[in-house]
Formats: sequence, structure tokens, C-alpha cells
Amino acid sequence: MDILSVVGLALAFVAIAAGQILEGGHLSSLLNGPAFAIVIGGTIGAVLLQTPLPILKRALRQSIWVFVPPNISLEQTIDKVMEWSNIARKEGLLGLENLTEGEPNPFAAKALQLLVDGSEPEDIRHALETELTAREDVAYQATQLFAGLGGYAPTIGIIGAVLGLIHVMENLADPSKLGPGIAAAFVATVYGVGLANLVCLPLANKLKSIVHQQSQLSELLIEGIIAIAQGENPRKVEARLRGFVQH
Amino acid sequence: MDILSVVGLALAFVAIAAGQILEGGHLSSLLNGPAFAIVIGGTIGAVLLQTPLPILKRALRQSIWVFVPPNISLEQTIDKVMEWSNIARKEGLLGLENLTEGEPNPFAAKALQLLVDGSEPEDIRHALETELTAREDVAYQATQLFAGLGGYAPTIGIIGAVLGLIHVMENLADPSKLGPGIAAAFVATVYGVGLANLVCLPLANKLKSIVHQQSQLSELLIEGIIAIAQGENPRKVEARLRGFVQH
Amino acid sequence: MDILSVVGLALAFVAIAAGQILEGGHLSSLLNGPAFAIVIGGTIGAVLLQTPLPILKRALRQSIWVFVPPNISLEQTIDKVMEWSNIARKEGLLGLENLTEGEPNPFAAKALQLLVDGSEPEDIRHALETELTAREDVAYQATQLFAGLGGYAPTIGIIGAVLGLIHVMENLADPSKLGPGIAAAFVATVYGVGLANLVCLPLANKLKSIVHQQSQLSELLIEGIIAIAQGENPRKVEARLRGFVQH
Amino acid sequence: MDILSVVGLALAFVAIAAGQILEGGHLSSLLNGPAFAIVIGGTIGAVLLQTPLPILKRALRQSIWVFVPPNISLEQTIDKVMEWSNIARKEGLLGLENLTEGEPNPFAAKALQLLVDGSEPEDIRHALETELTAREDVAYQATQLFAGLGGYAPTIGIIGAVLGLIHVMENLADPSKLGPGIAAAFVATVYGVGLANLVCLPLANKLKSIVHQQSQLSELLIEGIIAIAQGENPRKVEARLRGFVQH
Amino acid sequence: MDILSVVGLALAFVAIAAGQILEGGHLSSLLNGPAFAIVIGGTIGAVLLQTPLPILKRALRQSIWVFVPPNISLEQTIDKVMEWSNIARKEGLLGLENLTEGEPNPFAAKALQLLVDGSEPEDIRHALETELTAREDVAYQATQLFAGLGGYAPTIGIIGAVLGLIHVMENLADPSKLGPGIAAAFVATVYGVGLANLVCLPLANKLKSIVHQQSQLSELLIEGIIAIAQGENPRKVEARLRGFVQH
Repeated sequence: MDILSVVGLALAFVAIAAGQILEGGHLSSLLNGPAFAIVIGGTIGAVLLQTPLPILKRALRQSIWVFVPPNISLEQTIDKVMEWSNIARKEGLLGLENLTEGEPNPFAAKALQLLVDGSEPEDIRHALETELTAREDVAYQATQLFAGLGGYAPTIGIIGAVLGLIHVMENLADPSKLGPGIAAAFVATVYGVGLANLVCLPLANKLKSIVHQQSQLSELLIEGIIAIAQGENPRKVEARLRGFVQH
Repeated sequence: MDILSVVGLALAFVAIAAGQILEGGHLSSLLNGPAFAIVIGGTIGAVLLQTPLPILKRALRQSIWVFVPPNISLEQTIDKVMEWSNIARKEGLLGLENLTEGEPNPFAAKALQLLVDGSEPEDIRHALETELTAREDVAYQATQLFAGLGGYAPTIGIIGAVLGLIHVMENLADPSKLGPGIAAAFVATVYGVGLANLVCLPLANKLKSIVHQQSQLSELLIEGIIAIAQGENPRKVEARLRGFVQH
Repeated sequence: MDILSVVGLALAFVAIAAGQILEGGHLSSLLNGPAFAIVIGGTIGAVLLQTPLPILKRALRQSIWVFVPPNISLEQTIDKVMEWSNIARKEGLLGLENLTEGEPNPFAAKALQLLVDGSEPEDIRHALETELTAREDVAYQATQLFAGLGGYAPTIGIIGAVLGLIHVMENLADPSKLGPGIAAAFVATVYGVGLANLVCLPLANKLKSIVHQQSQLSELLIEGIIAIAQGENPRKVEARLRGFVQH
Repeated sequence: MDILSVVGLALAFVAIAAGQILEGGHLSSLLNGPAFAIVIGGTIGAVLLQTPLPILKRALRQSIWVFVPPNISLEQTIDKVMEWSNIARKEGLLGLENLTEGEPNPFAAKALQLLVDGSEPEDIRHALETELTAREDVAYQATQLFAGLGGYAPTIGIIGAVLGLIHVMENLADPSKLGPGIAAAFVATVYGVGLANLVCLPLANKLKSIVHQQSQLSELLIEGIIAIAQGENPRKVEARLRGFVQH
Repeated sequence: MDILSVVGLALAFVAIAAGQILEGGHLSSLLNGPAFAIVIGGTIGAVLLQTPLPILKRALRQSIWVFVPPNISLEQTIDKVMEWSNIARKEGLLGLENLTEGEPNPFAAKALQLLVDGSEPEDIRHALETELTAREDVAYQATQLFAGLGGYAPTIGIIGAVLGLIHVMENLADPSKLGPGIAAAFVATVYGVGLANLVCLPLANKLKSIVHQQSQLSELLIEGIIAIAQGENPRKVEARLRGFVQH
């Protein structure tokens, strides 16, 4: 559970609600059906138009990471690679064979398999880097879905506000409706800017950080697997991997 | 048929129309001939001025992909390369000769031809990468046409709105025309921002995704053709290509 | 003659004039001497301050390309290289000597000269790539002059509008002047945004496309000259160059 | 103590307070609880949502550098490397062993350790560059926390202002409250834009400069350690390092 | 003397003053002490907070280049390198020794010294490229000081304007002060946008151009020194350097 994500989201909404109430406003004046329809419908529409289906599916699956991040521990991965290195030293590369099945990280499983197959170090590196590039590519594209929502929401909030103002201007004859009309029009701006800056853009950035960490972990795995394939001793393997861990 | 494109475009326009009607406005107040002339004419004018003719033609041909995307299946392409690999193994590279003609993808056809001609692997790679770079270059430039429309439309919408406001300000003496005049002026903003954010920019991004997928498919083809040229066995060829497929 | 440039520029100005007239406004209300002085003077001043003299001269010479583009045909250049390749095959590299003088493209002339001088292929590549980098560098900097005009014009249009509004606000006592004053102030915005989006930015982008095409043509020439220097047969030279041509 | 940071921060706040007082305004009219809650709460919320916990901790630790920068002297580091080079020349690499413990810079300590261990120059370079890349990566991500605060603050200031204006518009019936209401609404904009431009963005840029200097110092260390490992004489080591120092 | 810088700066300010006077305004209404304090103090404060002291000093020294540019002539430098090449040919590399002292360009002096010392071509290249990278890095960072002033000025102009409007809104009871109050508030915007777009950003761009030209000159020097070190004949040295000169 990513506590920061929960706290951040809650803090932002509580702050805005508290500010609104402290100013003497009603939260109900921030509820506006037509503005909601325009901002949510328009933003989602724009993003559906621009996103290929496989990227959309991936983004939806990936979005859960904001609250339940995948297990990414460079330290644990170094321990695991050290264990493999020790097994390879004692039992040879074939000793790693029965670990492949149980490995939960598919990238690590593939790396182990290449090692067990006795591929040349350079072939292992080439295969794993092709795989890593393709993985990163899909994962970053999926984070772009949320960046896209965050990019379109404010401008579509402006469309909503301008539509509201057009409505007000056409009924300028009745001044008593002027204030509430402008107020209602402005709610679309709040929806658009808030959706983008309090939800979508931070969420896209958190997902990008996670994808970046996964890539680093994969790079550590490549480095470790190559070191084992080159027959380096476990202590040297560890020394090569320690550099990846920085706080 | 790209269902997401249709759904996205429809959702955005339905949402805005619904919002407008729920607010009590008329859709007819969003129709404004002069604003339409300024925004559409100005935006298209700016893009024609900046685009070379061959890129314009390519962009128009390419735009259909938003709704009818080209067939890009990495899996099917791996199967095809595997088939070629098996034929090359059994019948030699010349066995691939009669496949060249029937190959629908021109990049794959050229790759096959180079293979059949018995070129060196490094020459094949160089020739195919030159071709891929030139292809990507033209295809990305064509997607820029839509990004250009999306870039100019909002600022030209502002020109339209300011022209409308100038007109209103010059006739300030008659207050009854003030409201409708401002309302009409604002319609140009809706056209500009809407055209950009609900149509042109998402469309440019969808096309960029498709061009990106085509490039990946071409890279997979290069990798596969090189593996065949190096005489690798079909199982190893497949292993090298599987890394490209990620969901 | 680049028809698209003429049509694009004409379309944009006709659209805005037509919109203004359809709305019932007068074109004369878009003419405003002080606004013109501020926007044009301020924008040109900012660009003169930022541009070194040789880049300014180059940009002025280069600007004609928007309407009369240089002759850039990859196909014709391939034909020319093929001809050189055939001559080199029949008469040796010295057979190319009398072509150097008549060659209109100075980059091609230099490439031919290096070939005739009997330089090593790697030295030819190094010399031509240094030359190409320096050429591209100057040519792109010159396109930046127009991008600079397009970047400053809208903000200086805002300065003009704010100066106009300051003037209006200082004379708020006479309400009959309020409307026309605001109208006049807004004209500066139209000048700034229009100059940028209908003229300068599209023009900068067209010039960048042309410079990009010239670079591609130079890269094709380098590839072809190297192939001739390596003594490849004309059919192989052509195969290496065909990949550059994509529509 | 970084005097420029203190002077810069003080100057900006004094200038704004002085401007406000010179104009005849009260500083108290810039104090507004609800606006403060919205801008600070919303901005911090957005940044917590987007930042992984280890990066947050690192950013907090790193923020002290704005006022108490770490000791980064290229000249002193060259002197230190020269000393190592002289020791290595006289006593061999093992003579450096007892320096490793006392070395305050952990990167330099690791570099020394690799030297003492007798690793090959290329292995030292590979290990130190992996370490440097990972260090830079974490340090730059931490500076992004402040860039993130600076990015969200103005837009959340706009949310605060629009919420205030909605409140004003809903109470348009009482004109005496109009002015103070709008004034209060605008305070949120001042908070957002000021927080970003007077504090967060300059602070992020100062931190980026410091991280950049640290990286240069690490690159100098790598270059020096490699030169010692290659057995170059101290005068040549110094010549290779002097190029890093520029004023 | 850089005439374009003087003309550009003068043209911009004359244009704005002329526009203001033509519109019937007084230049005195553009003078506003509080706005000046806020915009200048806030902008300089933000930049001091973000800039390390050595970069600040360098930027101040470098700013003179806008009006008195350093002597950067590729042609003269080629002539100088040719002279060195001829001396090296006749008298050997040691013949260059007494030129080192008198060489005004410190980068050229260092290059000559390396040549006289008899370093290997690859060592000379490595040493000079390290030096060039460090030089460019410091010089570009210094240009960023002016880009920073240009980036903060408009947003701090907005802070000044909003502070002015807050003051106006709090005194809405007296309508006669409304106009002049808003006018005064707007002056801060003119200061911010004008300072950025008419002074700081163009100045930053001019400095970047000069730094870029210096880098090109240094690259030409590296190329020439390497050619001399490799013992190439003067005519070939010149041929390698001519490619750098493009108009």
C-alpha cells in the first residue's frame, strides 16, 4: 500500500473542501452536472481517440500501482542474484534450471532461462536489452494515458467555462441570473484544472517513477546475469551490482 | 475499424452537446458562420503555409488510419519470419524467391529480396536501416500536420474572439447587443480549443502511435532477416524475436 | 513556385477579413498605427538584439525559399550519382574531373572534387560530414530568426494591448471613449497573435522542412560518393540510395 | 553558507512587501487563511501523490543544500588526486589503503577501494560509471520534487482564485462585498505564483546546479583514478584533470 | 561593437514609446515605483536564489559580449592554424614553442602546448575535448542567468499586477480611483513582459549564439591541431578545416 498516494490525494481534496468552507462557500456549489458531463466526457473522449486499445488495457491494469505498487527492491534482487551466483558456482549453470519455474518476475525468469540454455554473454545481453526496450516502451506509453487526461482536462474545462459564459451572455437581460451563471461556468474550470493537477498529472508521474524503477531493476538483473554467465565469482558479482543501490 | 477512435470522437461531442443542453442553452448558439470562417480558414491557411506538398499528400492518405488502422501484428510477423526461416533451412535462401512477389508489406518485400540476393548480413542491416529511417521520417512529418492544426487552432480561435470583442466594444452604445455580441465572440474560442483538443491533437497522437508500431514491426523484421541471413536455426530466430512482443 | 505557401497565406488573410466583414465589422477598425508601431517595432527589435549579423543575412537570403523553394529532388540526385558511378566505372575517377566545374550544388561539387582527388573513403566521409554539420547548423539558426519573430510577437502584442488598456483606464471618466479604446487596445493582440501564427511560425516551419530535405539530399550524396569511392558497381550504388526515397 | 540564496529569498520578499506598502496597501490584506489552505494543501497533496517515498526522503535531506551547500571544490579534489598519484608512485597502490577509511566523500572512497583492490582500469571505469549514473538519477529525481511543487502551485492558485470568484458571484446581490471578495480571491493567485517563482523553482534550479557540480567532481575523480590505475606520472595526471576547472 | 544589439534594443524601446505617445498617452504613466520594486526585486531575487556564485560572476563578465562581442573568426583561425602547420613542417613541432606564450586565446594556447609537448594525437583530442566540454558547460550555464531573468519576470509582473488589483478591489467604494488604480496595476505586467521579451530573452539568445560560435572555433582548433600532430601537409590541413566555414 502506497501511503503517500492516499495521503496526497486526501490532503489535496480536504484542503480544497476546507478552503471552500472557511471562505463561507457551500460544497454543493461545486457540484454541477453539465460541467461534469463536458469535462469528464470531453477529456475521456479525447484520450480514447488518441490511445490504441492495447495501450488502454495496459494503462488500466497499471493504474493500480499508484496505490498498490509492485514489489521493486534492488537490495532483494541483489540477494537473489547472489544466490544464483553461488548455485552456479557450486552446481554449474544447470543447477539454476529448477529456479526458472518458480521465479515470479517474468523478466528474471527469461534471464535465468537464457543462462541455463548456455547462451553466450553477448547474446544474453542483446536478447534481454531487446526485451527491456520493448517492455519500457509499452509501460511508458501506458503512463502517457494519464498524462493525456491531465493535458486535455484543463483545456476542456475552459471549453465548459466558455460554454457557460456564452449561456450567461445570451441571458444578460436578467441581472439576477448573472452571478450564479458565471459561478456555474467557473465550476468547469475547477473540474478541469483540479482533475489534471490533483489527480491525473501526479498519478502519471508516480507511474513513470515506478516504470523507471522497474527498468533499473531489469538493468541490474542484466548486469548480474552477464556477470554469472562470464563466470565471475559471487563477491565480484555483488560489487558490480552494489553501485545500482543509492538512497 | 478502430472502435476507440469512433467512441472517443462521439463521446466528446455528445458530452459537450449534452452539457450545453443540460445547462439550458441551445445548440444553435454554438453555430456561428464568421467564427467558423476565421478559425477553419486561418488554421488551414497556417498549416498549408508550413507544409511541403509531398508531406501534405502523405498526411491526407495517412489520416484514414485513425479509423481503419493498418494491419500491424507483431505475432503474425513473427510467424511469417519463422516460416521464412524454415523455408531457408530446407530449401536455402533461394527458396524464398517466389515469396517476394506476394508479400504485401513493401518493407518486408525489400528485406526478403536482399536476403534472396545473398547480401552480407551487415549490408542488409545497413540498407534496411536507411530505408526505415527515411520511412519513419516521412511518416512522422505527416503526423505533424495534425499536430500543427492542433497547435494553431486555439490561437486563431483567440484571434476570432478578439475580433468579435472589438466589434462589440465599438458598438457599446447599444447595451442590448452587448451580451449576444460577447457570446458570439466566445464561440470562436470554443471552435479553436475544441478543434485542437477534441480532434486534431488526439488524432495526431493516434497516428504517432501507429507509426511507432510500424517502426517496431520493421525493427523486428530487420532482426529476423539478419538472423536468417546468419543461418541461425528457426528456434533461435523465434527466441530473438519474442522479446519484441509485450502487452 | 511553392503554391501551398501562396494559398496558405492568402487563405488565412481572406478568412479573417471575411469573418470580420460577415460579423458586420469594418476592416478599417483593424488598422491601428500605434499598435502596429509597438508590435512590429518591438518584435523586430527583440529579434535584432538576439541575432548575430551573419545569421540575419543568411535568414533574409533563405526566406525567399518559402515561395521559390530550392530544387531538391532525391530522384534526380540518384540519377546524377548513377551517371557519376557509370563514368567512374568506364573512365576511372579522373573521368569525373570535368563534371566538378559545372555542378550547381556546391556540396555535390565538393564531394566530386574529393572523389577526383583520390581521397580514402573514410576521409571523404569525415570531410563531407564536417561540412554537412556546419551547413545544417547555419541553416537551422537562420530558420530560428523567424521562429524568434513568432515567439516574441504575441507577448509584445500583449504589451501593446496592456498599454492601450492603461490609456483607457486613465480616461475612465468619459464612458463614450471606453468601448473604442478597448477595441483599439485589442488590435495589438490581433497583430501579435496573427503575425506569429499566420506568418512567422508557419514560415519558420516551412524553412525547417526545406533545410531538413537539403540535409537528406546531402546524406544521400555522401552515401553515393562513398559507394563510388569503394568501387561498387552502379546497380549496387543505386540499391543503396533507393532507400532514401519515400513518399 | 550560501549567501546568494539568503539574499535572493530576502530580496524577493522585501521587494514585494515594499511594493505593496508603497502602493498604499496593507500587508494584512495578503494574509488569507482559506487561500493558504487551498494552495499549500493542494500543492503538497499533488506532490505527495506523485513522489515515491525514498525520493521524498532524499529531497528533504537534500533541500538543506540550498543554504548549506556541500563542499564541492574541483581544485581541492585535483590536489587530493595528485597526492594519491604521488603516494601510488612511491609506495605502490597498496600505499593508498589506509586513506580509504578516512575519505569523507563516499564516491571517492569507493574509487580508492577499487584502485587498492588492483582492479583493471576498464573495470574501475565501468563500476564507477554505474555508481555515478545511479547517484545522479536519485539526486535529480529529488530535485524534481521542488520542480513539482513549483509546477503545481500556480495552477492550484488558479483553483483557489476561481473558488473565491465563484463565492463572489453567488453573492452578487450585495455589491459592497464584491470588491473585498475579488481581492480575497486574487490572494490565492499571489500565493500560487509567488510560491512557485520566488521559492520552489529557483530552489529546484539551485539544487540541480549542485547535483551537476557533484557529477562533474565525480567525473574528475573517475578520470584521475583511471590515470593512476594506468600508472601515469603525477604531472600527466594533473594535466588530464586541469581541463575540468573553468571559471 | 555589435551594432545589431544597439539597434535592436533602441528600436524596441522607441517603438513602444512612440506607440504610447501616438495613442495620446503620457510616458509618465508608465513610470510606477511600486511596480518597479516588485518586478525588479522579485525577478533578481529569484535568480540570485537559483544561481551559484561562480556562475553569477561569469554571467556578469560575459554579459558585455552582447555589445562588445569577442573576436570569433573561423577564417582568421584557419589562417593561424595554416601558419602553425607550415612552421611545424619546416622547423618541427618545437618550432611552435615560442608561439604558445603570445597566443591570446587560452584554448588555442593549451592546444599548442600539447602539440609542442609531443603528446599523442588521441591524448591531445581527449584533453582538448574535456577542456571544451567544461568550458561550454560553464558558458552555457552563465547564459541561463539571463534566460532565468526572462523566465521569472513575466510571472512576477503578474504578481505585481494582482497585488495592484487587490488594492483597487479593496477600495471599490471610490469609483474615481478605479481607473487609475487598474492602470497602475497593469504597469507591472508591462515591466515584466517587456523586461523578459525586449531585454533578457534576446540577450540570453545572443549570448548562446556567441558561446556556440566559440565552441565551433574550438572544434576547428582541435581538428587542426590533430591534423598537424598527425603530420599532414598544410594543404590537407586546410581542406579539413574549410568545411567549418559556412555563410
